[in-house]
Amino acid sequence: MDRIMECVPNFSEGRDLQKIDKIVAPFRARQGVKLLDYSNDEDHNRLVVTVVGEPEPLRDAVLEAIGVAVRLIDLNTHQGQHPRMGAVDVVPFIPIRNVSMEEAVALSKEVGEEVAERYNLPVFLYEKSASAPHRENLAAIRKGEFEGMAEKIRQPEWHPDFGPAERHPTAGTVAIGARMPLVAYNINLSTPSLEIAHDIAKKIRFIGGGLRYCKAMGVELKDRGITQVSINMTDFTRTALYRAFELVRIEARRYGVSIVGSEIIGLVPMEALIDTASYYLGLENFSMEQVLEARIIE
Amino acid sequence: MDRIMECVPNFSEGRDLQKIDKIVAPFRARQGVKLLDYSNDEDHNRLVVTVVGEPEPLRDAVLEAIGVAVRLIDLNTHQGQHPRMGAVDVVPFIPIRNVSMEEAVALSKEVGEEVAERYNLPVFLYEKSASAPHRENLAAIRKGEFEGMAEKIRQPEWHPDFGPAERHPTAGTVAIGARMPLVAYNINLSTPSLEIAHDIAKKIRFIGGGLRYCKAMGVELKDRGITQVSINMTDFTRTALYRAFELVRIEARRYGVSIVGSEIIGLVPMEALIDTASYYLGLENFSMEQVLEARIIE
Repeated sequence: MDRIMECVPNFSEGRDLQKIDKIVAPFRARQGVKLLDYSNDEDHNRLVVTVVGEPEPLRDAVLEAIGVAVRLIDLNTHQGQHPRMGAVDVVPFIPIRNVSMEEAVALSKEVGEEVAERYNLPVFLYEKSASAPHRENLAAIRKGEFEGMAEKIRQPEWHPDFGPAERHPTAGTVAIGARMPLVAYNINLSTPSLEIAHDIAKKIRFIGGGLRYCKAMGVELKDRGITQVSINMTDFTRTALYRAFELVRIEARRYGVSIVGSEIIGLVPMEALIDTASYYLGLENFSMEQVLEARIIE
Repeated sequence: MDRIMECVPNFSEGRDLQKIDKIVAPFRARQGVKLLDYSNDEDHNRLVVTVVGEPEPLRDAVLEAIGVAVRLIDLNTHQGQHPRMGAVDVVPFIPIRNVSMEEAVALSKEVGEEVAERYNLPVFLYEKSASAPHRENLAAIRKGEFEGMAEKIRQPEWHPDFGPAERHPTAGTVAIGARMPLVAYNINLSTPSLEIAHDIAKKIRFIGGGLRYCKAMGVELKDRGITQVSINMTDFTRTALYRAFELVRIEARRYGVSIVGSEIIGLVPMEALIDTASYYLGLENFSMEQVLEARIIE
């Protein structure tokens, strides 16, 4: 694959394995598309698919899978712990290799327009694709969920970007957009005090005056008797992993607390870790093109 | 590519671009094989090819390229700065992904046997494929070069592993074997003293009582007025990059010298750097399967 885009569509079906199989099917055995992972959560009643591909075949596969989900899922009978507003809840496109954020935005708009036309589904563009600042945040769009959307979508400020200003009777609405890869990164602390963990989290995160592309909160790890700063790195190319790590170390000093380890949850682009190695080794003149696997993928 | 083997054959032709093109041709546009790099050096009069592939198609491509080189290169008229004993000087196979060292050894022997039969070329197995300890080291096999090999090969201890005990009249002899990936890694010091750089190199390298899979020497960087410990990491899976880095830092302390940076020369497997990031971040429960690109290659 020369140019790699990632897509992580979330579908509101986490229990019926036959339906899940049908939704995932368009991503299998398709030239230029690779299904990396899919996992369904019964409590959330939700399916998260991770797929990469060249932009055009990926677009076609995503459109097909959305069609299957619209046909199979009825939100009127859907219950689960995770908030949701549609059969296809959210479809983020993420530039991975030799594609720009601009291309991801363009692709998300193309898919959004097509989804509205083919399936008569109201589409909200979100994140980098948002048509207004109040639509950047997925949680703000989704507020009220499927049930509330019947009314909400009629308000002028929540008019969809594509499709009818009316909730689809069974499939609800969908958010489609482009964003950077998320890295879920937790840093474990030598203290059982949730207060300290949360205090540190507040200092390193963006809204607390901390790092621009960093969301964080304190979490208790009861079985281990410790706590962690649980972090979402929203753009590791601007806010590096090691910067969050070192900043937590610095802030922890105030409490006489130290870092006992850290962990990455789920998938991570190699660049996020190689950049970290490069920092600690003080690498000069290093290029990602020196990485054997980067050459193989090209 | 499911299973990835690397091969870095060295050919004794660094000047005639038409011949170089013909030698490299078997690696191009071949299903299951990817040519990552090739570079010719006019002074060395040598061509180094880096290619990866699934074992079987890689084997076929290597055999074909060796045939072309045997046909085109005459060592009787070859001159260059780099020591050489054959038209195809050395052919290392390197396990990269989902293949074991045992499979690399088996592949090297299969290729060796076939090369002897097809091209009537004497073959020495070296490194992990060597049939005796005195044949592990390429330099020991090659000593005497093409010119000396006419006599040397008749000695019982230098009888080839495959093929006739007689130097090929134009193509000489070839060493074929399996080895781990080499990482060329240099650590720059804050001192202009070559003596200090060499002293540190001697302490960290295997033969000086240092790290098992580490070769090192001191080198002067005259334009920058500094020196470096120039390192060959011969098995980064056993002797990690960060271990060499930290050990140089520790040894440098004795001289009041510090590390000003480091550099990786040429290609490096992503695992070497991700392992380094994992060490500095204290990653818990991390698996290489969490790396997005590792999933894509699978």
